Amino acid sequence: MNTPRVKEILSWYGSDNPGTLTNLARLMNHGKLGGTGRLVILPVDQGFEHGPARSFAANPPGYDPRYHFELAIESGCNAYAAPLGFIEAAARDFAGEIPLILKINNHDVLLDEKDPLSALTSGVEDALRLGCVAIGFTIYPGSAERVTMYQQLRQAAALAKHNGLAVVVWSYPRGSSLSKSGETAMDVCGYAAHIAAELGAHIIKVKLPSDQLEQKAARDVYEKEKVPIATLTERVKHVVQCTFNGRRIVIFSGGATVSDETVFQEVQAIHDGGGFGSIIGRNSFQRKKEQALQFLGRIISIYGN
Amino acid sequence: MNTPRVKEILSWYGSDNPGTLTNLARLMNHGKLGGTGRLVILPVDQGFEHGPARSFAANPPGYDPRYHFELAIESGCNAYAAPLGFIEAAARDFAGEIPLILKINNHDVLLDEKDPLSALTSGVEDALRLGCVAIGFTIYPGSAERVTMYQQLRQAAALAKHNGLAVVVWSYPRGSSLSKSGETAMDVCGYAAHIAAELGAHIIKVKLPSDQLEQKAARDVYEKEKVPIATLTERVKHVVQCTFNGRRIVIFSGGATVSDETVFQEVQAIHDGGGFGSIIGRNSFQRKKEQALQFLGRIISIYGN
Amino acid sequence: MNTPRVKEILSWYGSDNPGTLTNLARLMNHGKLGGTGRLVILPVDQGFEHGPARSFAANPPGYDPRYHFELAIESGCNAYAAPLGFIEAAARDFAGEIPLILKINNHDVLLDEKDPLSALTSGVEDALRLGCVAIGFTIYPGSAERVTMYQQLRQAAALAKHNGLAVVVWSYPRGSSLSKSGETAMDVCGYAAHIAAELGAHIIKVKLPSDQLEQKAARDVYEKEKVPIATLTERVKHVVQCTFNGRRIVIFSGGATVSDETVFQEVQAIHDGGGFGSIIGRNSFQRKKEQALQFLGRIISIYGN
Amino acid sequence: MNTPRVKEILSWYGSDNPGTLTNLARLMNHGKLGGTGRLVILPVDQGFEHGPARSFAANPPGYDPRYHFELAIESGCNAYAAPLGFIEAAARDFAGEIPLILKINNHDVLLDEKDPLSALTSGVEDALRLGCVAIGFTIYPGSAERVTMYQQLRQAAALAKHNGLAVVVWSYPRGSSLSKSGETAMDVCGYAAHIAAELGAHIIKVKLPSDQLEQKAARDVYEKEKVPIATLTERVKHVVQCTFNGRRIVIFSGGATVSDETVFQEVQAIHDGGGFGSIIGRNSFQRKKEQALQFLGRIISIYGN
Amino acid sequence: MNTPRVKEILSWYGSDNPGTLTNLARLMNHGKLGGTGRLVILPVDQGFEHGPARSFAANPPGYDPRYHFELAIESGCNAYAAPLGFIEAAARDFAGEIPLILKINNHDVLLDEKDPLSALTSGVEDALRLGCVAIGFTIYPGSAERVTMYQQLRQAAALAKHNGLAVVVWSYPRGSSLSKSGETAMDVCGYAAHIAAELGAHIIKVKLPSDQLEQKAARDVYEKEKVPIATLTERVKHVVQCTFNGRRIVIFSGGATVSDETVFQEVQAIHDGGGFGSIIGRNSFQRKKEQALQFLGRIISIYGN
Repeated sequence: MNTPRVKEILSWYGSDNPGTLTNLARLMNHGKLGGTGRLVILPVDQGFEHGPARSFAANPPGYDPRYHFELAIESGCNAYAAPLGFIEAAARDFAGEIPLILKINNHDVLLDEKDPLSALTSGVEDALRLGCVAIGFTIYPGSAERVTMYQQLRQAAALAKHNGLAVVVWSYPRGSSLSKSGETAMDVCGYAAHIAAELGAHIIKVKLPSDQLEQKAARDVYEKEKVPIATLTERVKHVVQCTFNGRRIVIFSGGATVSDETVFQEVQAIHDGGGFGSIIGRNSFQRKKEQALQFLGRIISIYGN
Repeated sequence: MNTPRVKEILSWYGSDNPGTLTNLARLMNHGKLGGTGRLVILPVDQGFEHGPARSFAANPPGYDPRYHFELAIESGCNAYAAPLGFIEAAARDFAGEIPLILKINNHDVLLDEKDPLSALTSGVEDALRLGCVAIGFTIYPGSAERVTMYQQLRQAAALAKHNGLAVVVWSYPRGSSLSKSGETAMDVCGYAAHIAAELGAHIIKVKLPSDQLEQKAARDVYEKEKVPIATLTERVKHVVQCTFNGRRIVIFSGGATVSDETVFQEVQAIHDGGGFGSIIGRNSFQRKKEQALQFLGRIISIYGN
Repeated sequence: MNTPRVKEILSWYGSDNPGTLTNLARLMNHGKLGGTGRLVILPVDQGFEHGPARSFAANPPGYDPRYHFELAIESGCNAYAAPLGFIEAAARDFAGEIPLILKINNHDVLLDEKDPLSALTSGVEDALRLGCVAIGFTIYPGSAERVTMYQQLRQAAALAKHNGLAVVVWSYPRGSSLSKSGETAMDVCGYAAHIAAELGAHIIKVKLPSDQLEQKAARDVYEKEKVPIATLTERVKHVVQCTFNGRRIVIFSGGATVSDETVFQEVQAIHDGGGFGSIIGRNSFQRKKEQALQFLGRIISIYGN
Repeated sequence: MNTPRVKEILSWYGSDNPGTLTNLARLMNHGKLGGTGRLVILPVDQGFEHGPARSFAANPPGYDPRYHFELAIESGCNAYAAPLGFIEAAARDFAGEIPLILKINNHDVLLDEKDPLSALTSGVEDALRLGCVAIGFTIYPGSAERVTMYQQLRQAAALAKHNGLAVVVWSYPRGSSLSKSGETAMDVCGYAAHIAAELGAHIIKVKLPSDQLEQKAARDVYEKEKVPIATLTERVKHVVQCTFNGRRIVIFSGGATVSDETVFQEVQAIHDGGGFGSIIGRNSFQRKKEQALQFLGRIISIYGN
Repeated sequence: MNTPRVKEILSWYGSDNPGTLTNLARLMNHGKLGGTGRLVILPVDQGFEHGPARSFAANPPGYDPRYHFELAIESGCNAYAAPLGFIEAAARDFAGEIPLILKINNHDVLLDEKDPLSALTSGVEDALRLGCVAIGFTIYPGSAERVTMYQQLRQAAALAKHNGLAVVVWSYPRGSSLSKSGETAMDVCGYAAHIAAELGAHIIKVKLPSDQLEQKAARDVYEKEKVPIATLTERVKHVVQCTFNGRRIVIFSGGATVSDETVFQEVQAIHDGGGFGSIIGRNSFQRKKEQALQFLGRIISIYGN
């Protein structure tokens, strides 16, 4: 039975049908954090996004698509997210063992463009035939191609909701008018999270924001209104505020490999700031499985407290 | 993780996509019998099929659609099956708490026809928007209207499988050329189960057969080949044989209210004969909830041994 | 703002989208009974169903389609229901002044068949272009044609719900296997109401039941379980029970012209039994407007207490 | 490479696309008779058509859908034909090992009607997703329902040909205006074969005709023109003549179990009369596998000479 | 019957239907390498891609589309791949004699653009009507037009899989941000192979990689993790690793004409590195047929050992 917290979270999605709520519940009820309303998700789209060697050479079993299903299941994650090929390659073998998020658009780095656009690489029909609970979609707010991406998301999300699936949006500011550090600036990150929520995302994934303020018009307001953003906890709180004052699930990505202690401190800050969880790829699958299980176990235990 | 038995059962459905396998796994992994490959399902379509007072007057809380969700959840059943209205009336409240089977065709008894035809009352789109794992469909082999029903089933089943849902078929012989007792005759019951399997059902529900042999051509074969059908256990074994030699899930209905001991003996015979479980409506919801929980608990414990 | 009672009623429709809830709220919030959760609706399909002279000769202004809009508006009814032609003829003139229910199937009596089938005479597209809050649909449980009607309703209701409309079902038992008095027998009426609810109706309209019990199998249960049906209030209570234990809006038709006092007593019984209101055609529009306003005012005041 | 005989046979199908020719070639090139232009096909639809016990009790391994794939493969048949369920249950396990014919309509004998109509139980989409080379379809010339069946065949055949599949038609005269023995009368059988050819069948399956002449108008011509039909070989020749003078593949069914010697003599007559082969179900799968392999081996060797 | 190796390879494609598995089996079971799991495919799209004289002047019989069917058949290749016109021109003549791969997009060099985009020149419907086992599709990772190509592939692949066809992807890095030699750099080749796999390809064709490392971020990882890429065998091993750790069929193209000994050494390296085979066009059809048969025979014998 759904816990009071899961019921509360589901109550925020009043315009969704029971099918979508069912799949959101499946996501929240699976794994070691089942029922807490917190989520730890294993995403493995880096093979496509950064290349296979950069992703898997550090821990070669990760070249095998079955490895990540096993890691997500054994670690007690809530879900596993990946592109079409990685899901297709093992969905039959692990049918029903872990909620799946089909990442339906993808981007590679063989071309280095300033204004990136991901390609639609799969869709809602695939998500249904593969038994997924949700589609995942990346938008790049700030890119000159963002209109195309928002419109592709709108179509896919409408179809997903009609068919009872949930919609997870990766919102990563990038593009020719943003500085590199500005991509994770507090104002930009909060703005990107809000855009995803306005586009109808059920779950929003953003990077952890820095205390930088990128855009002048925004900076003026943050300063005038004294929005507290000094600590990571405060910044997480603000992102939560930016996503409908806490009435949308917002989770945070781990980013490039950093020291474990740094990750745990970030997770503690997400926890304390009211963030809903983490989506951690490289930091988990780029180490041996036993160590990855320990690492994910520690993160899950922070959220579980 | 799926148990070896669940994995074995899933391996029988090699032409289905991972989505359908996922929903079959959800059905087999939920409730007290989760992982055993045995199923106890609560069906409540009797309000439509027999009328509300005949169904619920004996235990008036059953008039409330929420009651049956609660009974199915609390008793630890694998799933709850009902027509559109009963599912719509509570699917949001219990989203994700119990696998749902949407019974997409229904028949009432305000007209007493010899060759019955159920009406399509909902469909695959509804099953998806309501978060169901399967559609349920009744066929009446023996009815002059059977061609219409088989063809409706074929269309609904193809769409369900395409969208990753499972298909549960109630196969109840009836019609002008069958005697009343012939409806549950051994040969007729085995034939009806086989037809459902040939029509592509993942799960087949039949009534427990008697030792009667209805059709002469069949009787000659049963006698010549000395097919053992003297005991209920033997007859269950034969039904299992008739559904692809045990490679399709076949479950048995409880029928009208009888003494509890009779039910438990029947369940023991289903268990011993290799049947996969029971779908028990009236015998469970037509008594007070506490007693129903005890009753279902006893049945589940027989299957669990 | 919606009253607590309106909010409570809307909460029963958890599988419907906010569009459908909005239209249900419009119905419940309009007119003198706005916010009470009680409804009085003016239906004028008798011209089609019984012929114009039988319907309007007693009060000739009723031949004019504008008359009924005015009557519904001025009397403070919650809504006005009629077939395509009557709605088309005045929808522009009264746009936004009264919630409209488009009766999308109709039956005439130029042919007297034993097993009636209504014709689809309009549809959801018409309801949208005409600004209606709901479609209305008649089923005849007991008719040999019922399968066709149930399937037509299923398709229209699915489309209506998808487009944010409400669905009102007139459930009138008729057909070759029912006696004339059996059409309003308690068991038959409760069964018909339940079927409409299972078919996904938001609002169900039935005739007031008599204390007759038509079908033997049902009679046995009513007697064994001592279901109280002696008084009209008790019978209304039972119909409410049969429609998901009060979690669906069920309203009652006035039927043929009877004395006003009889109508008021019936309304009082509906009120006391927990029925949600009345749909009163002939008794209101077959008298002069001033008298009709008095008559409807009295009914509304009974519900308003 | 195709043999001259296979090339010659393919040349008769000049209005079919290379996809359909490819699948016809696959049929003719597989198994021990590969390349000879002769065919022996294993059909197992008797579970649906006659009931499971009547079909499989004599050799219980036949209840298992894998058994028939194995029998068809090991015996060196050209193809295996079965309804949806039996194909779905093992198509993944034997992918690519034997050409498959999906029998897309089926009939059961739980209702004994005079004018039979098979139900559409699967379709071209299923044949494609299951990797079949052809669809199979039964028509009952002589049945009052034949128009429905011819029209269903027309639609399925057009779609099959568009998608590069072959069409196999079982043409079995039955119906209220034919005597039992008339169903296999020479004139009726030749007529049924011709109808199938005119409906666009690539491969036609009929029963072996007797020397009876059923219809007077036909009998007059047979007698006047002295059509030789005294021996089985002559009758086979005449059926071949009736199917476009040998420019369509026509094969013959084995019918109920008879003595092996009778079967072999019939096969010799088919061979000598220029028939293209046999489709033998019950006579092969209703005996132990080893004996079935011997039996089919003998038949194949007759055709191979 | 499928060999254990073919069965093992098919088991990697658990999300595909039996139809697609059947066509993959046909590919693997045809020709001299049938059953080994190794493939040699003859591709002839150079007429479109480079111009007819550049392609066929060296061996003028190659201007005739029948020549290549004959070469593929006589040499014992597993399959023949070509654009629409070449297939249409001879598919009827060789129906069923060789598995066909319809190359559904093509690019010419009459315009020399930096960021190439192939045109869709045929589709899944054509593949079905022509009797093909697969569609072939070229992507140019690194091209500014890659998003368009990935999305076209996604649509064609989804349709192909739905209809039981296999999908072969030529993944050739090209574009304004890659150096010429970088197109076959180890990191770029492995990345391109992985992208094709993630896009859902069943069979992936890449060029043999050099030991160059093109992208700095990748080079850092290769060096840090000491990925062995010194020998061609090691590089083939790494490409196999990059395509789901060996769980996708990856084959290598011959490229421009080089000395035969070089080709044989490359083939030996592919064999030793666990590559699945070769797709060899120009090196085979740009010499006289007899020599081509000897040449292909030698390659096949290397794989066959």
